[in-house]
Amino acid sequence: MITSVSNEKVKQMIRLQKKASARKEQNCFLVEGRKMVEELPGDRLIQAYASQSFAAKPENEALCRLLNAETVADHVMEAMSDTRTPQGILAAVRRAERGADAIWQTPSPLILILERIQDPGNLGTILRTAEGAGITGVILSADSADIYNPKVIRSTMGSIYRMPFACADDLPALVGRIRAAGIRTYAAHLEGKNRYDQEDYRGPSAFLIGNEGAGLSEALSSVCDCRIRIPMAGQVESLNAAVAAAVLMYEAARQRRM
Amino acid sequence: MITSVSNEKVKQMIRLQKKASARKEQNCFLVEGRKMVEELPGDRLIQAYASQSFAAKPENEALCRLLNAETVADHVMEAMSDTRTPQGILAAVRRAERGADAIWQTPSPLILILERIQDPGNLGTILRTAEGAGITGVILSADSADIYNPKVIRSTMGSIYRMPFACADDLPALVGRIRAAGIRTYAAHLEGKNRYDQEDYRGPSAFLIGNEGAGLSEALSSVCDCRIRIPMAGQVESLNAAVAAAVLMYEAARQRRM
Repeated sequence: MITSVSNEKVKQMIRLQKKASARKEQNCFLVEGRKMVEELPGDRLIQAYASQSFAAKPENEALCRLLNAETVADHVMEAMSDTRTPQGILAAVRRAERGADAIWQTPSPLILILERIQDPGNLGTILRTAEGAGITGVILSADSADIYNPKVIRSTMGSIYRMPFACADDLPALVGRIRAAGIRTYAAHLEGKNRYDQEDYRGPSAFLIGNEGAGLSEALSSVCDCRIRIPMAGQVESLNAAVAAAVLMYEAARQRRM
Repeated sequence: MITSVSNEKVKQMIRLQKKASARKEQNCFLVEGRKMVEELPGDRLIQAYASQSFAAKPENEALCRLLNAETVADHVMEAMSDTRTPQGILAAVRRAERGADAIWQTPSPLILILERIQDPGNLGTILRTAEGAGITGVILSADSADIYNPKVIRSTMGSIYRMPFACADDLPALVGRIRAAGIRTYAAHLEGKNRYDQEDYRGPSAFLIGNEGAGLSEALSSVCDCRIRIPMAGQVESLNAAVAAAVLMYEAARQRRM
């Protein structure tokens, strides 16, 4: 059992929690909690750690054995964890990213493209909702929040393992390629001419959602086929980015069921 | 100018930030930042405070005068603020609550009823989305997160001033009264028989959304007219509560535009 927070493996996990650069260099990320480790694809597991209290519970025995989890003292788990009250189990997991073009090169795609989403909770919620709505894949601008940030991972509720996603450096160029392939691109925009529910998303489609404060940039909006707006009553100036994404994705899912 | 964090007014503001009980006793809550003070109804302002740096900027002069804001030293504002990097302006605002029955006693109401929503960010986002979707009013169970929690206030982006809401102790009894008045009640439920988009929300309607982890209680679901489910693809077990509320409210808004 590891009992010291100075242990090299422990220091390594703490670095992976805190530093996007460490996660990138080592091509991995951390997941925490029973649900997240239970859902992880076994071939991507690098190393799991369980706290002494967690490992001691009979109901956790099978899980710890399956993951071949190394036991650590409770105070060591507290140091390794990103949460105030750790569930007692965490794991380092290998990344599985794709190229951005692989995301949309599928039959009848429904794509979500995100520009500079900054809030980790929003980004995680968007991934979770995207899986629920049956989205083909998500493409993020390179200057978005780090998708492997522990808060993002937590908010995805497991969708991080299953939702195809990719990062792209040049979104306007990507939109050009997507349009050339016959995918209709819809920019979510406060000044959109058409209401979102007046469009037909049953064909190959892509939604573009912008940054929480600034919205979608003009450089990106202007290369899309169409600007769509979500009507807002009262004095609401904009919707939360995850809410706007959900409304669009579920409208597309609704149309595609008909 | 107030320069000491031991000043009685300052200590009072800190109590209001931290304690739901203090906010309740004094029938007020705090708002922070330029947007939130600019949108506040003047007749509900109790007292505004501006940091020295904020007050010194020419572009803030008119606002500080209008609010009759008392100036405090920057380090005092830091102590008073709920955020790590305060915007420099905050205000105590009088509450304006209604009785739960006043919320639904309107022509053709579209009501949102929330049971034990615990995450302040979710609650604030739901209020913001509710205003955007044109909801008549929101009713919360008494054991929900405190709607005057600073994180809720921030996430509402100003909807806290405009969205009619009320707390209710006994939601099943409330649903009984609502149904007797001819409002159709829809429980968002993972095991709903009907898909949410197969129902007609153009008449008087109420949506019920449950707790983030546990969903809607059986005691409440069982007294509703109908359980509806939001279809989920992949292996998603549930949607974020604010996302589920958004999908339902915007579907109702869509139908009501037609």
